[in-house]
Amino acid sequence: MRSFQKILVANRSEIAIRVFRAATELGIRTVAIYAEQDKLSLHRFKADEAYRLDPDKGPIEAYLAIEDIVRTARDAGVDAVHPGYGLLSENPEFAEACAQNGITFIGPGPETMRALGDKVSARQIAIAAGVPVIPASESLPRDLTECEEIAREIGYPLMLKASWGGGGRGMRPIHEPEQLRAAIEEGRREAKSAFGRDEVYLEKLIGDARHVEVQILGDADGNLVHLFERDCTIQRRNQKVIERAPAPYLGDRQRAAICEGALKIGRHTSYRNAGTVEFLLDRQSGEYYFIEVNPRIQVEHTITEEVTGLDIVKAQIRIAEGGRIGSLHETGIPEQANITLSGHAIQCRVTSEDPQNSFIPDYGRITAYRGAFGNGIRIDGGTAYSGAVVTRFYDPLLEKIIAWAPSPNEAQARMLRALREYRIRGVATNLPFLENLLSHAAFGEADYNTRFIDSHPELLSAKKRRDRATRLLTYIADVTVNGHPDVEGRPKPPATALEPVPPRLAGEAPAGTRQVLAERGAQGFADWLREQKQVLFA
Amino acid sequence: MRSFQKILVANRSEIAIRVFRAATELGIRTVAIYAEQDKLSLHRFKADEAYRLDPDKGPIEAYLAIEDIVRTARDAGVDAVHPGYGLLSENPEFAEACAQNGITFIGPGPETMRALGDKVSARQIAIAAGVPVIPASESLPRDLTECEEIAREIGYPLMLKASWGGGGRGMRPIHEPEQLRAAIEEGRREAKSAFGRDEVYLEKLIGDARHVEVQILGDADGNLVHLFERDCTIQRRNQKVIERAPAPYLGDRQRAAICEGALKIGRHTSYRNAGTVEFLLDRQSGEYYFIEVNPRIQVEHTITEEVTGLDIVKAQIRIAEGGRIGSLHETGIPEQANITLSGHAIQCRVTSEDPQNSFIPDYGRITAYRGAFGNGIRIDGGTAYSGAVVTRFYDPLLEKIIAWAPSPNEAQARMLRALREYRIRGVATNLPFLENLLSHAAFGEADYNTRFIDSHPELLSAKKRRDRATRLLTYIADVTVNGHPDVEGRPKPPATALEPVPPRLAGEAPAGTRQVLAERGAQGFADWLREQKQVLFA
Repeated sequence: MRSFQKILVANRSEIAIRVFRAATELGIRTVAIYAEQDKLSLHRFKADEAYRLDPDKGPIEAYLAIEDIVRTARDAGVDAVHPGYGLLSENPEFAEACAQNGITFIGPGPETMRALGDKVSARQIAIAAGVPVIPASESLPRDLTECEEIAREIGYPLMLKASWGGGGRGMRPIHEPEQLRAAIEEGRREAKSAFGRDEVYLEKLIGDARHVEVQILGDADGNLVHLFERDCTIQRRNQKVIERAPAPYLGDRQRAAICEGALKIGRHTSYRNAGTVEFLLDRQSGEYYFIEVNPRIQVEHTITEEVTGLDIVKAQIRIAEGGRIGSLHETGIPEQANITLSGHAIQCRVTSEDPQNSFIPDYGRITAYRGAFGNGIRIDGGTAYSGAVVTRFYDPLLEKIIAWAPSPNEAQARMLRALREYRIRGVATNLPFLENLLSHAAFGEADYNTRFIDSHPELLSAKKRRDRATRLLTYIADVTVNGHPDVEGRPKPPATALEPVPPRLAGEAPAGTRQVLAERGAQGFADWLREQKQVLFA
Repeated sequence: MRSFQKILVANRSEIAIRVFRAATELGIRTVAIYAEQDKLSLHRFKADEAYRLDPDKGPIEAYLAIEDIVRTARDAGVDAVHPGYGLLSENPEFAEACAQNGITFIGPGPETMRALGDKVSARQIAIAAGVPVIPASESLPRDLTECEEIAREIGYPLMLKASWGGGGRGMRPIHEPEQLRAAIEEGRREAKSAFGRDEVYLEKLIGDARHVEVQILGDADGNLVHLFERDCTIQRRNQKVIERAPAPYLGDRQRAAICEGALKIGRHTSYRNAGTVEFLLDRQSGEYYFIEVNPRIQVEHTITEEVTGLDIVKAQIRIAEGGRIGSLHETGIPEQANITLSGHAIQCRVTSEDPQNSFIPDYGRITAYRGAFGNGIRIDGGTAYSGAVVTRFYDPLLEKIIAWAPSPNEAQARMLRALREYRIRGVATNLPFLENLLSHAAFGEADYNTRFIDSHPELLSAKKRRDRATRLLTYIADVTVNGHPDVEGRPKPPATALEPVPPRLAGEAPAGTRQVLAERGAQGFADWLREQKQVLFA
């Protein structure tokens, strides 16, 4: 087992900081990379060294430039690269480029990433490993009677899908046999015009489904363990919003079956390092189906850490060093029999999305920030503090709040308490939306499926939080304009009482401002000010 | 078992917030009280209601005014009062005043507080309960030969103490029999002149001692459990600085013996609610001795929560409601057999004390604040955030950082990582001192006694942390004045190059400033500015 001296994290924001913290605790020096647009981001300052990426590439493209990143890693003399999630984390070429330069890639091998990255190939692996997949047909024959036979075999309700292409074109839900023929004909026509080919197939439609995923860890010696499951059913547009561990609705037998399913996939692919096997759970039948494998760390790994007491990111690093699972000294991960669950954990993703404005990400300077701490609360944050600048270039995740408690209900109460303590001003946040979710009766009873948010529009109607100063000003303005509500017949102040006086600028004021005002007039001046703001937040 | 609807916390800062959080999670409404000098403190804003105490009493006295507080509690319609630690928490009159007004006092009964509050009476209780106390004599007889006999029985080294009074007067360490006679005579003389009475006694001197304390919880039905021990050996002037749980140096047998000692005291006093039994552990002999009982929540209760997974403050509230220990549903506290230890936790107290300036508490506005979060880190904070004002009236605790990890070494590495991430500007902090402590070789090996800080002066020599801007300005100033170090013979800028120009105030500037400057001259103006600052932070 070798010992890394220095690690580069090929990522940004909270996950980069998460890895830096783990590495620092292991006594490993840390290296950050950052795009020009990320020059004020916290991950740059949390590493021991930080290098700017190519400023001529875009804000995202800079982080995708394999050659640049590998060169930086080599120049900085790092032993290993941690890819985080997103960006290059599932890119086998990046893993290969690292290896070719003598740098350890902290993750599974490129061949595993290739086999699992392609969904058709992943489905074949699952079938070969004996793990249930969602029943589906081959491309349908032309004979509609044959199609009826195939549909009956899979069982209604069904989803018609185009064999080629995606984006929902050609898709049709089919609830009853009577709808089949028309749906196939329409679907073929739509697929033909969208993709130029009219092949379609049928897949079982699971309308009332939960999303359950299993964390696995494997080492180079073939030791493989699971760290139990997470429930990630509460999603908005396929983006997870709230995650919890363990899934409160699973019985012991069902839990064991799903975790064993994940291990089968891991064994079949000789899985190395951390990965997540995702399943869809049919609430009606109780059946579970393999969806895909994420061959990397996930945003929601935190809740598994809370309920198992194990550090997944440290384990990733130490497995990459050659450490064995089953040796606490080498990886911190014990044998399967000694991995146990304790209590319940919930994670919320606090973002700068504005729930009152179609969840459009807001950006600007965070003028005030107070978090929520105390017993059972863990915060994994990105660039969220008083004075931080949130840019418009990246995903809007500000912080992850994780609440642990002995029981699901206590964890829920604790999370709600924490959400209500938060004060973030300067940018809009999804905090009121998260509060609505956590306080919904169905959440406490775990009575939800993947369409929970879509089917409960009341979750979106959040009152905007107002700070103390705004409330006070509103009150003063109200009394000034409308008179005091408790004083009958009280005269309102005359409209001319307050004649606003523009501030007079002294002769030494910055030339630019005065000049612009003089030259461009009021409107031109206002436009210019806006430009300045854009420059500031660029 | 009744259910509280509303609780008042008769305390301030972090412990008030700690109790509010627990109450909120239990669905109980919270009431804060605050002194005029605490009007900007965070605990005021974290409660559902907040009431100001008598502004004519002092900043501390306001919190000690039993009548005022009980009246506020009654007017606000609370069911119960939580006293926190310090202030009125160990005052039996306060507990009685609450009871007389039909308000539940969350803590042990006044008779228990009285019996344990007096150290002589507490020592008698320990002896009666069969718990070892530090061997000591009665008041010594006049006959010095008899004294020699008594000294031999207790065993050297010894400490001579005055029977009446305190403050170290009359105290003498006695390491060998030859020193005894002279010490007694000197001690009697000193005691006589200090307290008017010359009675003295001998106590065994434990020079190489650890401080170990056991958390206990009792309910009204007589159920009593311990939550294992904490090590609080690292102290500065009898003030705990770093606490950890469990004590890493205790073997299973020793741990069981000390915890059973604490239960004996609890049983003997029919102890109700949360309390801590403190012991001194002789490193040389391995013997442990009862010191005292703290009949209240303690600052360091957090680390016990981390290693047991139990919520002590919630348990306090629910026991006061009549809940039983052994019923998870009623108090969250299981039977003794199901209370187990997991991992290791360390707490550091971050204060505004300046280690470079004899630990004098600093105060002012916190201009920048970034905490340290992530896996295994819990923060229990008072008024610590960007923009917060730290006053000079109260104890200088800013935040408690708690690090949990599976092993003591990992917890130590995690705590060090967290301390180094902290950024607090505007007030001095003890962070560099804490870093020195945590990175000391003796800490990792738990090779320390209660005199650790006193006997390691190198712990106090901390480099002042400098922020990025100051470092940059220092560099620019250095190059400006001394020339660039890498350029030989480079001419320095002439001394007259920068002629400072005082800012010209426009006609509309605030009258006060200009007037004071005109009337009092430069020195008078500077004094006036200082006065303004004092007003600001008063």
